[in-house]
Amino acid sequence: MAHNIEEYFGFAKEMANEAGKRVKTDFYKNKNILVKENFADLVTETDKAVEDLIFGRIKEKYPTHKCIGEETVSASGHCELTDEPTWIVDPVDGTTNFVHGVPHTCISIGLTINKQPMLGIVHAPILEETFSAMKGHGAFCNETKLSVSTINELNRSVVILEGGTSRVPEILDTKIANIKSVIGHCHGIRCYGSAAINMCYVARGSHEAYVEHGIHVWDIAAAAVIVQEAGGVVCDPSGGELDLLNRRVLAACNKTLAGQLSAITTNIDMGRD
Amino acid sequence: MAHNIEEYFGFAKEMANEAGKRVKTDFYKNKNILVKENFADLVTETDKAVEDLIFGRIKEKYPTHKCIGEETVSASGHCELTDEPTWIVDPVDGTTNFVHGVPHTCISIGLTINKQPMLGIVHAPILEETFSAMKGHGAFCNETKLSVSTINELNRSVVILEGGTSRVPEILDTKIANIKSVIGHCHGIRCYGSAAINMCYVARGSHEAYVEHGIHVWDIAAAAVIVQEAGGVVCDPSGGELDLLNRRVLAACNKTLAGQLSAITTNIDMGRD
Repeated sequence: MAHNIEEYFGFAKEMANEAGKRVKTDFYKNKNILVKENFADLVTETDKAVEDLIFGRIKEKYPTHKCIGEETVSASGHCELTDEPTWIVDPVDGTTNFVHGVPHTCISIGLTINKQPMLGIVHAPILEETFSAMKGHGAFCNETKLSVSTINELNRSVVILEGGTSRVPEILDTKIANIKSVIGHCHGIRCYGSAAINMCYVARGSHEAYVEHGIHVWDIAAAAVIVQEAGGVVCDPSGGELDLLNRRVLAACNKTLAGQLSAITTNIDMGRD
Repeated sequence: MAHNIEEYFGFAKEMANEAGKRVKTDFYKNKNILVKENFADLVTETDKAVEDLIFGRIKEKYPTHKCIGEETVSASGHCELTDEPTWIVDPVDGTTNFVHGVPHTCISIGLTINKQPMLGIVHAPILEETFSAMKGHGAFCNETKLSVSTINELNRSVVILEGGTSRVPEILDTKIANIKSVIGHCHGIRCYGSAAINMCYVARGSHEAYVEHGIHVWDIAAAAVIVQEAGGVVCDPSGGELDLLNRRVLAACNKTLAGQLSAITTNIDMGRD
């Protein structure tokens, strides 16, 4: 079956805008906060409502397409990526930011076909920035075309790293060791609390790289296309090919930098989605 | 001599706007980058030009007032804070961000009289946010009045910490130990690369606290008033009173939270300005 990717892309943007209105309204309200795995792993009614809104629209328009979403997977414990067209959605990426009123929060909508990311929308309604890309057609922030940084030396780079939400001592120890190693080798680290936005910042060229262990497929599926279409690379932190379900990612402006960062960080096995 | 603080405040805003235009123009250009103490400690022609612009305006309008600025002190090695009206200026706070095209960069203009911070402007021209406060008159972001967060438990907080630009092993070790300790006790850490903006984010209520060792008086003099006027506290990371020249700061939404953060972080002696 032939796919009209352009049509899907327009549809994804529409959904992201509609979801963005809900996120923006709720951002300024008091929130009911629930915890998931531990005191630092948060979820709100908005996460669930926005995912329902997006999946409802998809099922109506493309009833044969599959859906993978943070809240649905959390509820069912089941996450399967097939060759079918699959919409991969994080209704609120950067939930902790959303809860605290930090503007770096977004809706992430990706689509894979034959397990390959074909398009991605990362819509940050408070920042009023919509990052988007369709395979083969470049990456954009609002109307501006994006290009990654041309720097290829880690010691002239700014790298994004996150503390994450895991509080398991061994995981935290390795994350901290990686933070220490990277700080010592670069201009500085930054930390914004949203995996999808972090990747878009690499696409934008303002940060040379981002590495994280513990993310999920819905955090990276959309932004992976955006980074690639801006000229960057997305791979496994070990340097190998990206495995979307393997809960880790390295995004960089080029292979040289990815290799330098990979060489000084330790991999963490966080299980699979 | 009676001081017209309101007049000084209006003058500071004018200077910040003028300086902001220059920073914004240069932000989108290629920059000549020089290093200071090490490969991660950067300075550009813009830093020097903006400081000259601001100090020129001050000397013209208030010839008896004193000036302390990052670039002047770097050049002379001399930093003295007296009881005289003293303008304390960081022409480009977040220089690494400025160099890399990260929008979190600002002009920080503070004024002390009898060594007490009386007003502060933190103008972030790329973010289009101007934080300002005059002692006794509240704090604002653009036209919006600011209030700190009401959270008083560290394990429900988001805390800002920085890796900083020092690459001295013992300093980096303690910074990393503090990062680890704080991550384990809070919802998450964030890192934006500008001390003045970090403090304003505590004032805005989106982050509960910020602690850093290695900052300078020009990084914090303006933002200290902004945090205090938004209802927050600014103190030494040990919990004692703030010493503007002591190269460390803890800003928090309230004393309870400041105490909790102070208890789990280790002080670092970075010398005096």
